[in-house]
Amino acid sequence: MKARDLQPERILRLEPDAVVLLDQRRLPEEEIELRCGSAAEVAAAIRTLAVRGAPAIGVAAAYGLALAALRGEDLDAAYEVLASSRPTAVNLRWALDELRDDPTPERARALHEEEVARCRRMGQHAAELVSAGARLLTHCNTGGLATGGYGTALGAVRTAWDAGLVEHVWVDETRPLLQGGRLTAWELDALGIPFSVIVDGAAATLIARGEVDAVLTGADRIAANGDVANKVGTYGLAVAAGHHDVPFYVVAPTSTLDPDTPTGDGIPIEERDPREVSTRFPARNPAFDVTPGSLVGAIVTEVGVHRAPYESSLPTAVRSAR
Amino acid sequence: MKARDLQPERILRLEPDAVVLLDQRRLPEEEIELRCGSAAEVAAAIRTLAVRGAPAIGVAAAYGLALAALRGEDLDAAYEVLASSRPTAVNLRWALDELRDDPTPERARALHEEEVARCRRMGQHAAELVSAGARLLTHCNTGGLATGGYGTALGAVRTAWDAGLVEHVWVDETRPLLQGGRLTAWELDALGIPFSVIVDGAAATLIARGEVDAVLTGADRIAANGDVANKVGTYGLAVAAGHHDVPFYVVAPTSTLDPDTPTGDGIPIEERDPREVSTRFPARNPAFDVTPGSLVGAIVTEVGVHRAPYESSLPTAVRSAR
Repeated sequence: MKARDLQPERILRLEPDAVVLLDQRRLPEEEIELRCGSAAEVAAAIRTLAVRGAPAIGVAAAYGLALAALRGEDLDAAYEVLASSRPTAVNLRWALDELRDDPTPERARALHEEEVARCRRMGQHAAELVSAGARLLTHCNTGGLATGGYGTALGAVRTAWDAGLVEHVWVDETRPLLQGGRLTAWELDALGIPFSVIVDGAAATLIARGEVDAVLTGADRIAANGDVANKVGTYGLAVAAGHHDVPFYVVAPTSTLDPDTPTGDGIPIEERDPREVSTRFPARNPAFDVTPGSLVGAIVTEVGVHRAPYESSLPTAVRSAR
Repeated sequence: MKARDLQPERILRLEPDAVVLLDQRRLPEEEIELRCGSAAEVAAAIRTLAVRGAPAIGVAAAYGLALAALRGEDLDAAYEVLASSRPTAVNLRWALDELRDDPTPERARALHEEEVARCRRMGQHAAELVSAGARLLTHCNTGGLATGGYGTALGAVRTAWDAGLVEHVWVDETRPLLQGGRLTAWELDALGIPFSVIVDGAAATLIARGEVDAVLTGADRIAANGDVANKVGTYGLAVAAGHHDVPFYVVAPTSTLDPDTPTGDGIPIEERDPREVSTRFPARNPAFDVTPGSLVGAIVTEVGVHRAPYESSLPTAVRSAR
């Protein structure tokens, strides 16, 4: 397993009779492809996290709608089952809307290619924020697996690494599903970038000890004021980084920006099955949290680096992305 | 398994030929007793976390030294192997020093009884800090298992619950070894106290949402200025609590106070086997972190509630404990 395995079509592709994806629940132990033969099967793959990460979910949904069209499924029903598969990710609906008028394999593949190209541009912008010798900390998985190709926050790490700027990457394991310890670690290992997995609870003490130069995360949805919904654990990281004046950056495509939602209070937070946390005892499992824009040093999209006040910088980003 | 199973002698006891302890690595799946036939076997049980929690470690070491005396082992060697089994806990050495001049079963059992009585007094003092209807958050396991009988922070939860003050307990699962998700949950379940296990990364967002009224943790060592070494993850909790003006309290016996160590910088932090975090990828595993006294609202010991400035309140606590 080397870097070639992170090619976009290895992670996610449309075949004439199926959407085929690398089953992220099985990684890193096994590299198994999952064939989804209908929109409902794609929705199930999204719901059960066989494919996860906001941009990759969008691409999978787009392929799912194109597959539904190829199969002659009812497209409204296919749209609905795909749109309702995960409540927090805003660009799931964005991708479906992009496909609705032209639900063809060509359009879906173009959307996938655009997503990868967007990630590369994000990486270039974000790498400008990284100083030489940087020790970067990241949460969850925001790499090729999460985006169908290159990555958002982890794409930025990759671009910065290629530019010779990165000394080490701290990988939050990201309980309960260990997207960091399983998936980010798998990608960094494949790419040959030096890293250490840590438990989520160790991040704050590494920050306090001066062993972290910047924190980079992705986003599932960003409100008009820069409030960021992302994988649970992100907020605590942002508070710890802010407490120690370590920059906290969010790397995400403009499709994640949601100007119709004024603040993070308006973002629905998915509560997942408590058995992901404990199969024996009562548990609560909020899958996301909201980090206020005031703790976010910059939001990096494919069109540039955006700073506070986000009420004005984010609409500019959305306009220039069109 | 009901509350009677949390009796001190069920958790830890000395028999004529062995120190017998409930193997905490097997809980909650199995309730299995481990028989340690020598000081070295007790040290191994401490090192491998079959028994853990600073006060319980102290009691186990005391029983280990008494067992060594019964068996005619070299007591200096027994002292050394026990003292070096865990580097961070200061009351391990304190308990061994207590036994050194009188390494008898009677003295060791008295120390165990004193430990349990101390915990009950701590619980009474700490419960004064808890308001009616409190939703309390705790980290790691600081209950009967950790102390050989009643508990420090979890003992306080128990006292507050008995006083009708507690509405709910949030239990950080406490990666990598899940002392919260396995042991604290097991104890609260046995005691009939309502609780939910959460991933460590979810604590900050629950605090932000106003669902936590106070955070209570134990301590492995407390420096003269009130800096607290405790299970990794504690520091991030304290920062998040401070950010939202939620009180953060530490409950620990005076034997945890280390007036000879001026600040947390002087406390050695145990780095444990990275395979506890990941067996497949490189990992870092600092087992503890240090929370500055400035973030600690109060330190509660068996002699009372101590507030900043800790440089003066903690020496008073040590003196009145004698």
